Amino acid sequence: MQPAIGACGRRARPGWAVVVSLDAALAAARGACRADLDDLLTEVRIPSISTLAERRADCRRNADWLVERLQKLGFDTSLIEVRADGNPVLRADWMGRPGAPVLTIYGHYDVQPTDPIGEWKTDPFDPIVIDGFVHARGVADNKGNHMAALKAVEHWMSVGGPPVNIRFLIEGEEEIGGESLPDYLRASASDLATDLVVLWDGGFTADDRPNLMVGLRGLLYVEVAVSGAAGDLHSGGFGGIAPNACLELARIIASLRDSSTERVTVPGFYDDVIVPSATERASWHQAPDMEARMKTIMGTDSMCGEADHDIFERLWVRPTLEVNGLWGGFSGEGMKTIVPARATAKLSMRLVPDQDASKIVASLTAAVAAAAGPGVSTEVRVLGSSPPIFLGHDHTGARALSRALSESFDTPAVVVRSGGSIPVATVFTETLGAPMVISGIGHVASGAHGPNERLAIGSYTGGIETMVRLMQYVGDGDS
Amino acid sequence: MQPAIGACGRRARPGWAVVVSLDAALAAARGACRADLDDLLTEVRIPSISTLAERRADCRRNADWLVERLQKLGFDTSLIEVRADGNPVLRADWMGRPGAPVLTIYGHYDVQPTDPIGEWKTDPFDPIVIDGFVHARGVADNKGNHMAALKAVEHWMSVGGPPVNIRFLIEGEEEIGGESLPDYLRASASDLATDLVVLWDGGFTADDRPNLMVGLRGLLYVEVAVSGAAGDLHSGGFGGIAPNACLELARIIASLRDSSTERVTVPGFYDDVIVPSATERASWHQAPDMEARMKTIMGTDSMCGEADHDIFERLWVRPTLEVNGLWGGFSGEGMKTIVPARATAKLSMRLVPDQDASKIVASLTAAVAAAAGPGVSTEVRVLGSSPPIFLGHDHTGARALSRALSESFDTPAVVVRSGGSIPVATVFTETLGAPMVISGIGHVASGAHGPNERLAIGSYTGGIETMVRLMQYVGDGDS
Repeated sequence: MQPAIGACGRRARPGWAVVVSLDAALAAARGACRADLDDLLTEVRIPSISTLAERRADCRRNADWLVERLQKLGFDTSLIEVRADGNPVLRADWMGRPGAPVLTIYGHYDVQPTDPIGEWKTDPFDPIVIDGFVHARGVADNKGNHMAALKAVEHWMSVGGPPVNIRFLIEGEEEIGGESLPDYLRASASDLATDLVVLWDGGFTADDRPNLMVGLRGLLYVEVAVSGAAGDLHSGGFGGIAPNACLELARIIASLRDSSTERVTVPGFYDDVIVPSATERASWHQAPDMEARMKTIMGTDSMCGEADHDIFERLWVRPTLEVNGLWGGFSGEGMKTIVPARATAKLSMRLVPDQDASKIVASLTAAVAAAAGPGVSTEVRVLGSSPPIFLGHDHTGARALSRALSESFDTPAVVVRSGGSIPVATVFTETLGAPMVISGIGHVASGAHGPNERLAIGSYTGGIETMVRLMQYVGDGDS
Repeated sequence: MQPAIGACGRRARPGWAVVVSLDAALAAARGACRADLDDLLTEVRIPSISTLAERRADCRRNADWLVERLQKLGFDTSLIEVRADGNPVLRADWMGRPGAPVLTIYGHYDVQPTDPIGEWKTDPFDPIVIDGFVHARGVADNKGNHMAALKAVEHWMSVGGPPVNIRFLIEGEEEIGGESLPDYLRASASDLATDLVVLWDGGFTADDRPNLMVGLRGLLYVEVAVSGAAGDLHSGGFGGIAPNACLELARIIASLRDSSTERVTVPGFYDDVIVPSATERASWHQAPDMEARMKTIMGTDSMCGEADHDIFERLWVRPTLEVNGLWGGFSGEGMKTIVPARATAKLSMRLVPDQDASKIVASLTAAVAAAAGPGVSTEVRVLGSSPPIFLGHDHTGARALSRALSESFDTPAVVVRSGGSIPVATVFTETLGAPMVISGIGHVASGAHGPNERLAIGSYTGGIETMVRLMQYVGDGDS
């Protein structure tokens, strides 16, 4: 059992008139649904796509917009330009409760690209409410989350202020694995002391239950480039003797995953994989219809992956290798009869404890080169990586969030892992040394990185109440 | 031995003052090098890319430009709009020698697309002469060829007119396997009687020798589309259970060619392949450094393909399966962590006698479906096909062209096959029933379908002289 939370190590002062204030803050939240929704709609109109250079100004505009709102709430805000080519880190501190715990809330204002744009049913940056869902890029990942936290503060402010000190750290490079926030955390850790970090970028389980994520897969993202002849060649004049970069790329990709077991064939890939305890694995089976739900979301009638691992293991504790995209040769209308000279694929691997990205890059690079036929050269370029993470949940902050979620959504919060990655999570734990909880209000069906991203309005208002309560319960501690 | 050529079966009239005229026509050609080059430069400025809908007007402009030139030479010309969505067939007849043979010259005014445009060293539609080569899209395939024939007629006209009747059939859909000219040939065969068809769309051997092609590979061009989940999915939330369309496409492609033998694995693919005679195969080995030359052109230090077949067999009489292009998922800058739902490849097969495209489509479609994993569906769409062809060369027209080439380029013309395809060739032989010769002045190194297409000025002027002589020798017959 960890000691009860206190402001950077100090014990919380007892005696806040917390019960009255919590009810008042919740009442304020419930009376402001329309205004709260309008604010979310305003933010998701900003196309803050961090991976596109031409959207950099929009990222900045989103950060400025958040700064203005937080300043109005009385926060001491700053946009920290950590890297000349990066997006600024938004830091906002409200330290109006001397001696009370400091709660750090993490979010990100950048969003994924919108392609394939043709598959969106609505304009991704012109939000629209359909059947109780807001449709817009970034509404679930992560604007709905951080806006819920911001609105919770606003409602607390309307009844006298939250019972804890609050710090927002909202970055603009989450979707590109940027280093601005990690750099800032490493450089300024001593100035960022906190009692709890809430990594508020998660989502509900597939069977729609609020949860605490105690483990995340890491990510290793690479580009594999294949180069053959000096240039594209006529397939009549050279077909039969020329190296075909697209064919060789296909062969390389096919060689990296065994088609019968679906295991990754990169030598040593599984060497450091830790098998979770039987207890933990058993706890996942509370959602027996997970497979059916996921098939519905995917729109397929079969599930892929490793036959000797169940769906929870495949998603949460088994590493993967996926092709995120590929291109090469002629892709226009009609026929062009060439033997293409170049082809490229984006591959990403989800890593699990205790896999090490650098070891895997070396092995993958050798495997790619070995799979290439004569006359072609290969290159593996690392675009980004983040380590896998496993957190405990036997601490005050985890209990506070579990209670806040359970009450706000009227259903018990469960403990799960996530197949996704939050690159900054490890940096938070390593630099700040504070307990961390990972949660959020997105849904598996939110389409977070695909077309038609959406968020239920009920999830958003429940998220606001969750954050209102969390601020209360963190202030209360385990008392 | 066939009978000497005559006008649609009639014997040629003897007694033309041919020796004087040929010398005069050749002298006229030699005195007009600069003007002849200027005309070629003018034509290649027209970006007549038939596969791009937005270039359709340019195709038409090219056809109009040729009509105007041929009308000035006294031809009876017409642009035949065979198909509403096609490019017109240019027909131009000069029948000024009643009783003399009719020589039909085939060419095409459409060109390949220019991508990858970044690999061009010059603007593809702003021709420039570098070290004796004209650099421009279409200069070798096919504008340099048909312009050489047109100029030959012009030089004959300056000295009293050619000793034979001439018909040009210049189409605008060669690069897209269009059906306008085939339709026209089938519908109007009775009006197109001729004594010789010159398919003037070939090129020199790799060791730079003029030649007659007596065999062409056919073509079967398909698009393979793979479809998985309803939309792209987050690779964190679904990686490990979702079908990956890009991965499955790679597996399908890899399954279609054995990586050790490089044989196509589609069942029955080789069933109807005819092995050429030992005599014919031995004749190809007149160019012992073919492999080194091809490696230099390709810019690779190794040759790919079937180990148990030499380079001539691989290029001319062995069928192939090539990936012309592929695309799917995310191909933008940076990282997008998705499991892609859709991926597509363009595949083409070069066919040899007596392979049948329809049999192969059926077998390929089944093989693609069989190679696809669970959760994905596949579709094979045929974009175009043309049968392989084998021509004899024991006839007057072949002898006339062989002599014209040998004299004009001062080196003996050889008999070869080609790995390429000329879809209309079979239609010509089937509809007109006349002897056919296939030749041309492009080079293996011309980059016909790739970047930096180019044609030696000497090939062009030699091509003009060849056509001047051909008109003479066809008129002479075997006498």
